Amino acid sequence: MKRLLWCLVLLVAGCAASAQELRGGDELLSPEILPDNRVVFRLFAPGAQSVEVTGDFLPERETDGRKAEPMNRSEEGVWSYTTPAPLAPELYTYAFVVDGLRTTDPNNAHVFRNVATLYNIFLIEGGRADLYRVNDVPHGTVSYTWYLSPSTGEERRIAIYTPAGYESSGNKYPVLYLLHGMGGDEEAWLAFGRTAQILDNLIAEGWAKPMIVAMPNGNMSQQAAPGESSHGFEKPRFVLPHTMDGLMESRFPEVVQYVDSRYRTVRRKEARAIAGLSMGGFHALHISKQYPDLFAYVGLFSAVITPPDSVQSAVYDRPAEKLAVQFARLPKLYWIGIGRSDFLYDENEAYRRELDAKGYPYVYYESEGDHIWRNWRVYLTEFVPRLFR
Amino acid sequence: MKRLLWCLVLLVAGCAASAQELRGGDELLSPEILPDNRVVFRLFAPGAQSVEVTGDFLPERETDGRKAEPMNRSEEGVWSYTTPAPLAPELYTYAFVVDGLRTTDPNNAHVFRNVATLYNIFLIEGGRADLYRVNDVPHGTVSYTWYLSPSTGEERRIAIYTPAGYESSGNKYPVLYLLHGMGGDEEAWLAFGRTAQILDNLIAEGWAKPMIVAMPNGNMSQQAAPGESSHGFEKPRFVLPHTMDGLMESRFPEVVQYVDSRYRTVRRKEARAIAGLSMGGFHALHISKQYPDLFAYVGLFSAVITPPDSVQSAVYDRPAEKLAVQFARLPKLYWIGIGRSDFLYDENEAYRRELDAKGYPYVYYESEGDHIWRNWRVYLTEFVPRLFR
Repeated sequence: MKRLLWCLVLLVAGCAASAQELRGGDELLSPEILPDNRVVFRLFAPGAQSVEVTGDFLPERETDGRKAEPMNRSEEGVWSYTTPAPLAPELYTYAFVVDGLRTTDPNNAHVFRNVATLYNIFLIEGGRADLYRVNDVPHGTVSYTWYLSPSTGEERRIAIYTPAGYESSGNKYPVLYLLHGMGGDEEAWLAFGRTAQILDNLIAEGWAKPMIVAMPNGNMSQQAAPGESSHGFEKPRFVLPHTMDGLMESRFPEVVQYVDSRYRTVRRKEARAIAGLSMGGFHALHISKQYPDLFAYVGLFSAVITPPDSVQSAVYDRPAEKLAVQFARLPKLYWIGIGRSDFLYDENEAYRRELDAKGYPYVYYESEGDHIWRNWRVYLTEFVPRLFR
Repeated sequence: MKRLLWCLVLLVAGCAASAQELRGGDELLSPEILPDNRVVFRLFAPGAQSVEVTGDFLPERETDGRKAEPMNRSEEGVWSYTTPAPLAPELYTYAFVVDGLRTTDPNNAHVFRNVATLYNIFLIEGGRADLYRVNDVPHGTVSYTWYLSPSTGEERRIAIYTPAGYESSGNKYPVLYLLHGMGGDEEAWLAFGRTAQILDNLIAEGWAKPMIVAMPNGNMSQQAAPGESSHGFEKPRFVLPHTMDGLMESRFPEVVQYVDSRYRTVRRKEARAIAGLSMGGFHALHISKQYPDLFAYVGLFSAVITPPDSVQSAVYDRPAEKLAVQFARLPKLYWIGIGRSDFLYDENEAYRRELDAKGYPYVYYESEGDHIWRNWRVYLTEFVPRLFR
């Protein structure tokens, strides 16, 4: 009887259906990372007519420009695809397309959400990608907390990373404000961005100073990430009304005020950095320019530079004048990173020419690739070691 | 040119593919909750031969016992299913089965992981389910942090809920230790369990005392939830070596010690509760019995009662004697909840008879249904208002 109960404990709640099983009882492993870093993807779908794997590790197909490859069907109905060559160390995303329908891999429960789409992930270890792993090092704390925004009158959700030792040390810490892109939210840098792992690892290696990282929600139309606000489990939207209209930038001091009041921070410009990706880079640019005494370190990761034509906001007035003030006060670091094939490359190049013409110093980092998380993780690992030295 | 850039900002990173779109540009809405609380599920899959919706709101089919219903195909290739009757307020889970392959709904980015399986979720508002919503009330903070476990020599991850006002009040708080089931981890109570929302809402209504909730990982073989430990993005396993072998129970004081050292807690038995579901209920039973001076409140939610035959641990020795000591010290609350069709019902009934025979007082709550999260959420809403009065 007791044995029976134990079998039941193991079977309840659909847990036995937690992975695809073949008739022999063998569990399907997908993705399988082979010892040489080739990767095998598998899906049991005997009724399917065609199955593709689509992922950011695949080259664009000549026929249709899609990053997808057909999978092959075994007699048993298992579709599989093996990368022809080893994959370089990196955090990758993928999904399957079964008879035209995009689906996540039922054998891989690890997914990240980007706006409204789920992506399976896997990691090839080695090199810089080891900074994206959870390693056996002291870990910081990740908190999701809420602050009352005086300007909106609403509670807004913010993600905070405090480094290992924060609780016991009694020390005060510098703060990096890290901003997401359009369509992202306060969870984006922690998921695709691997911020907690990157900071844990850089700090443990002594390559970065212990610091707090504050990740607010940059869409002023949102109180919190989809599913975390009182709007319920709504469909995440890419474009929201208040994203690049001056609201986030003009009201940013209230975020700093909250973090300074809630955490043991060093309340000086030299102990504050602000960086962001895409729209978040745009925010970082305009916030640091609008409030030239707040941040000594600025990071523009594949940043949008110029405000939309349609927008009227005092934040975007007299940009050259404000930039002159900002650079007259000598930022410790003004860091610009962009991918060579990013659609914002030209806009960034024009901005750099403007900085060059005025003799404003900045550090420039150019990478391969376009407007992708892979680059933003790299930029974070390049930017963070330069802070608060 | 700027207009073109803006179009590109909206299109990059696959964001335009964030939901299924029909040829007319109409976005598919799924699930759609109709004004009368009937629910429509939709999937665009023109190539599919058969599509089913499977979910916990469906009755078991007479033919095969599965909770699934066929969906109907429109001429355009949109499959849909509308519940014949309104659904009662509740948090529900579902998925689709396309030509035999289980897949999540590509139009619903809200998923919870249970062991290795992803479930789409939706919520019908009203009644007790309003406690599962994010409402416009002050919100607590959810932190994922790590503590050094002296007994394993490893860092272990723990989730902590601190109530709204914790940071500013300076008060000391009572602590509820809330334990997950086999196959779960430190994230389980926060996802399916809606612990943060339930606590926020109960506290805001004045129905529960402000309290800290500590949710450790009860699998002593795991440092952290799958994907959050140095084992990387491994496949989550249901059965791990050290789950119900006395290890978790005997070493539990180190969890209490950590929480007491890290948070402003009231360090008295009367300010400590321990509860858990299934395996976690088993842990709560045996921990509270082993350490009769630690917890004044005990909650057994669909608990396993008896240790596995094969296990030898001093924790499970002399149970009657230890229970006598525990009840001689007069627990403030010994709470037992179970579903009428739970496979552990008989074992719980036998345990209650044992308590009755000895005259040990307890509160009993019997619900419909079996070994499911729906019951555990209900039990939490019943248990928490009784604590620390």
